[in-house]
Amino acid sequence: MALDAGFLAELGSVLSEDEVIHEGDELSEYGSDETEDLCFVPQVVVRPRRAEAVAEILRLAYGRSVPVTPRGGGTGLSGGALPVRGGLVLSLDRLNRILEIDEENMVAVVQPGVVTQVLQEEVERRGLYYPPDPASRGSCTIGGNLAENAGGPRAVKYGVTSDYVMGLHVVLADGTRIQAGGRCRKDVAGYDLKRLLVGSEGTLGVITQATLRLIPLPAHRALFLAGFDSLRGGLDGVLAVLREMTPSACEYLERAAIEAAAAHLSRRAPLPGSESYVLMEVDGLTEADVEAQMVAAGEILDSTGAAEVIAAVSPREQEELWGLRRAAGEAVKALSTYKEEDCAVPRSRIVDLVLGVKEIAAGHGVRTICYGHAGDGNIHVNVLRMDADDRTWTEELPRAIEEIFRLTISLGGTITGEHGVGYTQRRYLPIQLGEAELDVLRRIKGAFDPRGDLNPEKVLPDTGQGS
Amino acid sequence: MALDAGFLAELGSVLSEDEVIHEGDELSEYGSDETEDLCFVPQVVVRPRRAEAVAEILRLAYGRSVPVTPRGGGTGLSGGALPVRGGLVLSLDRLNRILEIDEENMVAVVQPGVVTQVLQEEVERRGLYYPPDPASRGSCTIGGNLAENAGGPRAVKYGVTSDYVMGLHVVLADGTRIQAGGRCRKDVAGYDLKRLLVGSEGTLGVITQATLRLIPLPAHRALFLAGFDSLRGGLDGVLAVLREMTPSACEYLERAAIEAAAAHLSRRAPLPGSESYVLMEVDGLTEADVEAQMVAAGEILDSTGAAEVIAAVSPREQEELWGLRRAAGEAVKALSTYKEEDCAVPRSRIVDLVLGVKEIAAGHGVRTICYGHAGDGNIHVNVLRMDADDRTWTEELPRAIEEIFRLTISLGGTITGEHGVGYTQRRYLPIQLGEAELDVLRRIKGAFDPRGDLNPEKVLPDTGQGS
Repeated sequence: MALDAGFLAELGSVLSEDEVIHEGDELSEYGSDETEDLCFVPQVVVRPRRAEAVAEILRLAYGRSVPVTPRGGGTGLSGGALPVRGGLVLSLDRLNRILEIDEENMVAVVQPGVVTQVLQEEVERRGLYYPPDPASRGSCTIGGNLAENAGGPRAVKYGVTSDYVMGLHVVLADGTRIQAGGRCRKDVAGYDLKRLLVGSEGTLGVITQATLRLIPLPAHRALFLAGFDSLRGGLDGVLAVLREMTPSACEYLERAAIEAAAAHLSRRAPLPGSESYVLMEVDGLTEADVEAQMVAAGEILDSTGAAEVIAAVSPREQEELWGLRRAAGEAVKALSTYKEEDCAVPRSRIVDLVLGVKEIAAGHGVRTICYGHAGDGNIHVNVLRMDADDRTWTEELPRAIEEIFRLTISLGGTITGEHGVGYTQRRYLPIQLGEAELDVLRRIKGAFDPRGDLNPEKVLPDTGQGS
Repeated sequence: MALDAGFLAELGSVLSEDEVIHEGDELSEYGSDETEDLCFVPQVVVRPRRAEAVAEILRLAYGRSVPVTPRGGGTGLSGGALPVRGGLVLSLDRLNRILEIDEENMVAVVQPGVVTQVLQEEVERRGLYYPPDPASRGSCTIGGNLAENAGGPRAVKYGVTSDYVMGLHVVLADGTRIQAGGRCRKDVAGYDLKRLLVGSEGTLGVITQATLRLIPLPAHRALFLAGFDSLRGGLDGVLAVLREMTPSACEYLERAAIEAAAAHLSRRAPLPGSESYVLMEVDGLTEADVEAQMVAAGEILDSTGAAEVIAAVSPREQEELWGLRRAAGEAVKALSTYKEEDCAVPRSRIVDLVLGVKEIAAGHGVRTICYGHAGDGNIHVNVLRMDADDRTWTEELPRAIEEIFRLTISLGGTITGEHGVGYTQRRYLPIQLGEAELDVLRRIKGAFDPRGDLNPEKVLPDTGQGS
């Protein structure tokens, strides 16, 4: 589909020349994100510098029924930012100002393009804390985090992005501006639009400003790495820890994940000989509190049957261990063609999930590497091609994935804990949600975006409105 | 409107005789709740014992366009459970079973008619904690708490009801059953229906089961009452405390509120001579933690200019002080004809709110008594008739209330922090929300309940769909 010249002229009336990309190689850079090998080249990309321009852009696109795909840092893992129907990519990356840090009310007011880590460092300088920390926090944006309701390792103690959203400015598909919530800690005036919009993956509206709740900075922390001599040892260890305390992170990695990460960083894998690992952090407002937790954590980890435990107290030692954990995703994916799934189950079922995944994978001749936020039941399952032949990969992979999701659901779980449904996972959504639930989702989509031009082909399965 | 005999017969086919009330004085008991003097007598009341009957009742009512008003404990303060259009009251009080307390995953699965305090005591016996604690917790139900997104004093540290909702079973207006969420700590598969339904005041669906998140029980606590020699002294004290620590409750009462409560309980008011009070609680998992907080709290309270501070360490002493706080609402309302408002502002603005309320009241010749959850900016403003003449009460009261709400909004606040919009506050909603926001609320209502027969005349202002 060629772009209408009239539409380009209209965009030119509200945007400066360098805010519009409509030709050249740069266009295709906006056709993909971090999701597998997918690329859908848009007809035009806009990168507004003024928040007000977002409403004008949406109004113009609506007038001409041009599909609009909002985009944050482009780090998504379910294709939420892919312009599947072409049209316009609305990149929010230049709306990257922290507008206010209100220390008295403990809130930050930010534009959507602020990089998560930039916000975190800014508020930490004031003794405040914004906990959600997806692995991509160095390049993902608050807008993308809000769209996907991002989590991360610290969710086990602090919750996910939606737990920190107090207010939003949003532009609807037709360019209408609305506000939801604000700076009040309690507000029940009308339906909770802000919580509905968070996690809606840009399909209901485009967030142009967010008021985020901050908490006092837990400036003191300690980190442990425990090695276990079986695949399930680490998972049992996670559950044993959670019965006694609430760590600020409780991550699981199987041996292959930590070995890949170590190789990727040209380091030696710690605690060699372990089959699985638990990376566990405790934090607190005072040194005394963290010391008490460290003693408790050490005792608990010893009682879980860990073969060996390393404690990292200095920031440098901690950063080294966290570095391994953060590198795992990229390192595993560099091993081979892959498909990453983002299963979450009630945390008591993590052993059943991981052992079940291994059994399914073996039955289909594919290999998996599991790691993730076991403390809140969220395991990233990477299915790797490795040396599988073409038939195995093309025929067995889809079957294996469907079986993994059916297992996940049978354990009371979800097909996506924090990566979103986006484009790639919507075909699996009916494994989790029934027709009645899907119908409600479609009606909500219809209430916000009756024409279905805002981030089309996302979240909702392929039948029905909006896709 | 007379009740269709055919409808009664249909109800009789799914309910036993003692589950249906269609005549006699008992009907009118379901015509009012704790909201002022309002009463709307329904044509029929049903009190099902089987959760499955809820869907059948809604399907039958939908078939005959009978208005349905869900009802919990009847303790609402905004008329959310009033059958304004008559029809059927669906009382969930007999669906009062705690179905499961899953200690490993730290969740409780409950029916909507469980009384909040009953759940709290049951989980506390297992070392777990369900924090939301509205003043009516001895008689309100989880279903009502979910409908209104109830708060309470401990919200300042622990958040409100929606922060503890993980999964819901819901019946829609036409009898369709849906589920939202479950037992996973992370789940981003589709829009967050559970968070949309919580706080929707029974206008989008009827909750028949809830999975609630529990946390470790902070078994240790201490309580302080500080007296201040000016009306604003206590408010400044609250802000000074919040700058340094996060108490588990931080309540404000002006002198008249504590005096009314003391008289109501036939006790002497503590710290006589104070013009305002702060009731502040600290809690923790260990005695050492609470002792450290007590030392800090004592120092902070002393530095705020409190004239006198009482510490209550034993459970009996604490219960006495909490008893005063909990009695304040009823005691103040017993003084005179009244209208209670539930203002909330960003907490930094509580001084401006209370002083502004006093000024507005003086200008209109009415009296106010203020108290509430100042720590999260939520102040209950009771406007009392006392000895005002008829003209003042009927003419000046509405003007005073509108001015109070306009002040609240100008401070970045909300017309209702935790009581809900319900029936009585919907006329004020347009002071807070613009036409674009109201239109989105109407479209959401339409997506769930196109005929508008589920809890009609609630939340949405009088124009538009569903009312």
